Amino acid sequence: MAYFDGIKVMLEEKEYPTHWYNIQADMKTLPPPPISPATGKPAQPEELARIFPAALLAQEMSRERWIAIPDPIREMYRRWRPSPLYRARRLEAELNTPAEIWYKYEGVSPGGSHKLNTAIVQAYYNQQAGIKNLVTETGAGQWGTALAIAAAFFGMRCTVYMVKISYQQKPYRRLLMESYGASVFASPTDRTQAGRQILAQHPDSTGSLGIAISEAVEEAMERDDTNYALGSVLNHVLLHQTVIGLEAKQQLAAVDRYPDVVLASCGGGSNFGGIAFPFVQDLLSGQARPKVMAIEPEACPTLTQGTFAYDFGDTVGMTPIIQMYTLGHDFVPASIHAGGLRYHGDSPLVSRLYHDRIIDARAYRQSQVFEAALTFAKSEGILPAPESAHAIRGAIDEAIAARESGERRVILFNLSGHGHFDLTAYDDYLNGRVVDVPFSSEWTAESLRALPQVES
Amino acid sequence: MAYFDGIKVMLEEKEYPTHWYNIQADMKTLPPPPISPATGKPAQPEELARIFPAALLAQEMSRERWIAIPDPIREMYRRWRPSPLYRARRLEAELNTPAEIWYKYEGVSPGGSHKLNTAIVQAYYNQQAGIKNLVTETGAGQWGTALAIAAAFFGMRCTVYMVKISYQQKPYRRLLMESYGASVFASPTDRTQAGRQILAQHPDSTGSLGIAISEAVEEAMERDDTNYALGSVLNHVLLHQTVIGLEAKQQLAAVDRYPDVVLASCGGGSNFGGIAFPFVQDLLSGQARPKVMAIEPEACPTLTQGTFAYDFGDTVGMTPIIQMYTLGHDFVPASIHAGGLRYHGDSPLVSRLYHDRIIDARAYRQSQVFEAALTFAKSEGILPAPESAHAIRGAIDEAIAARESGERRVILFNLSGHGHFDLTAYDDYLNGRVVDVPFSSEWTAESLRALPQVES
Repeated sequence: MAYFDGIKVMLEEKEYPTHWYNIQADMKTLPPPPISPATGKPAQPEELARIFPAALLAQEMSRERWIAIPDPIREMYRRWRPSPLYRARRLEAELNTPAEIWYKYEGVSPGGSHKLNTAIVQAYYNQQAGIKNLVTETGAGQWGTALAIAAAFFGMRCTVYMVKISYQQKPYRRLLMESYGASVFASPTDRTQAGRQILAQHPDSTGSLGIAISEAVEEAMERDDTNYALGSVLNHVLLHQTVIGLEAKQQLAAVDRYPDVVLASCGGGSNFGGIAFPFVQDLLSGQARPKVMAIEPEACPTLTQGTFAYDFGDTVGMTPIIQMYTLGHDFVPASIHAGGLRYHGDSPLVSRLYHDRIIDARAYRQSQVFEAALTFAKSEGILPAPESAHAIRGAIDEAIAARESGERRVILFNLSGHGHFDLTAYDDYLNGRVVDVPFSSEWTAESLRALPQVES
Repeated sequence: MAYFDGIKVMLEEKEYPTHWYNIQADMKTLPPPPISPATGKPAQPEELARIFPAALLAQEMSRERWIAIPDPIREMYRRWRPSPLYRARRLEAELNTPAEIWYKYEGVSPGGSHKLNTAIVQAYYNQQAGIKNLVTETGAGQWGTALAIAAAFFGMRCTVYMVKISYQQKPYRRLLMESYGASVFASPTDRTQAGRQILAQHPDSTGSLGIAISEAVEEAMERDDTNYALGSVLNHVLLHQTVIGLEAKQQLAAVDRYPDVVLASCGGGSNFGGIAFPFVQDLLSGQARPKVMAIEPEACPTLTQGTFAYDFGDTVGMTPIIQMYTLGHDFVPASIHAGGLRYHGDSPLVSRLYHDRIIDARAYRQSQVFEAALTFAKSEGILPAPESAHAIRGAIDEAIAARESGERRVILFNLSGHGHFDLTAYDDYLNGRVVDVPFSSEWTAESLRALPQVES
């Protein structure tokens, strides 16, 4: 039986999730299929099959509610799962709140974040399909690290296009990927047409996630033994991450709790979807009414300020066109420290749920986020990744609201990773070098005008 | 009940250790008491009480076999304990060995190493004694980080003298300590007499653990509200770390195993004593005969090449004189990457056990250690600290020996911490910049001549 030792809830082997939860089975309105940039019509499976294995494409489209986790993955999950669910007792005391704050901690994975939950699954299905190389992009480096580890686990090669500014500012992240055997390049590179095109126009480009995606996809398209892997946004990625929320639900049940509020940081949506979807299931079925909230940075407020539209997933326009909240595929956010939350778009599933007002969203300034991060570190002991600290800020504000209203609210959030590779960001904050750049909706005007027109 | 999910063994709440194991109760010959440098006679309790609280001094001298872990500490341990005991299945397969390799992973603590196991205990007893500031030294930074977190937990201030070369080479470690609120200084500093004395003689000194200890002890001696905390060597520090071995013993028992070999890296001895002492207890009582082995770097081979003698714990000669294996208190080892294993001496308890041939020791070159570290990272997924990788090298060699002899040996080692703050070391290794400096016993000649003469 699951047990609570006063600080954390752990599960026993027979309680480990055996299936992922596929929210597509329960959503009334599903996102439309991706549109081919070549034809303007729904992308054909064979187009997508050039860069993804069939098993992942099947999961991408599946309407089955429960999808079995393959045995080799279940065994690998045991290296860091079930992740602990903590009661944040010291943070509660610090905030003097009647609310209970619970957090799921994904930093216990060897890569230090939730990203490995899907990286090993993607590596597994690709290996089964005979693929020898995985290629991807990375911004902050969490995803690249996870895929490098996953590739090492399955004896595959791994190539990572790392956004140039991160490559320069985060040498430790690059070294970590290289230690696991990956090859890492500062994007834009001159290895791909997409990279050369950007460099011709902007020789000093510091890169963006959208550009790095273009480069990675191009390399994957060109080689038969090479596939592309994406760390967020897509349905199958969010599917794999639901292992977080499924565990959390069981862990809370073990202490007879159900959350009034569920929060997670939201960039591409996989961390958010991972913890939230098993609770959104209850919302959709009417079984419970938790407030479910995605937290994003004010500098890249995709949900709270973006447009619900069809847009490219990358900058150059090589990926299928998907319906999502977007700031425009050529939007370049301010260079905030939460590099993992600087994506111009968002998961189509998360976007649809937000559009249908099933979930909520909120945006915070950097300084608010770092303040929360240090409060958390000193009280709970764990230094969070700046991305994850967005969820902490949201949880702290919910706990303060509970104090003001005298409510005994149960708050659950996902602490998606630790901040061991983000110390220069903390240095900047501690020394007053973190500047809050307000978002201006004018920034997106050009991007939005450039959005492709799609008949829906 | 404890349970094994095929990858790791976890304990349930009722199995968490309630007491630390004090090996002094079982050793036939105990180390002699520390000698005062002022009088040349056994140090008086009041001398030591200027820098340590009474409760810790009582533990230092205690002969009680089992010492109760205070409730607030037991609660805090639950933030990362019990740490998982892993079966290294992928490493075993990689080595094609009939041996079973099990490792206890201490990198799950918020500080990323075993050091927090004693840091919170020392902070607790100091806070109970009314102390407001803790001062210490740190080399690689694991201990400084742990004490910074512990001080934050108990609302105390924390000052860290960080060996200058580490301060310069490991800015992330410094930033981590500062994020938890600690003040960090590059030692030698001009804040203390000891530091000024060194700087006058060697203006370009890059520091050493021995010098940093001198500075920290001096600051603690001068202020009534300030005490000193040491991260290794002393009896009470090793006592607190036995929580590792006690858990491991129970976890192995849950899968019906008992180790044939127990290994740990050994610098000051706390990581080694932590996992090994509960098994050495069985050796001392004759209940079992595991081979227990301390692994050290060839560049600082305290046990394998040092002299069993009375020596100072620090460089300047401010600390009590203790009987231990030593390379001489002014020995300056080559600047290897395993900064935590560069101490000139060793725990008196470990030294005595080694002198009495109850435990064994082995030394490795840096390149051997890094090779083992990367083999481990790629197979088990966790990138180890260079210090911890010494134990991995030892375990791999034991597993290879088992393959050659066809023996089904059970190998247990302690993976004391992760390598997230040691990426430049891996960079050096991957790019051929790691040089093996052979140890020359001539190096210690001067130090050994300078050893104080003590009548025993």
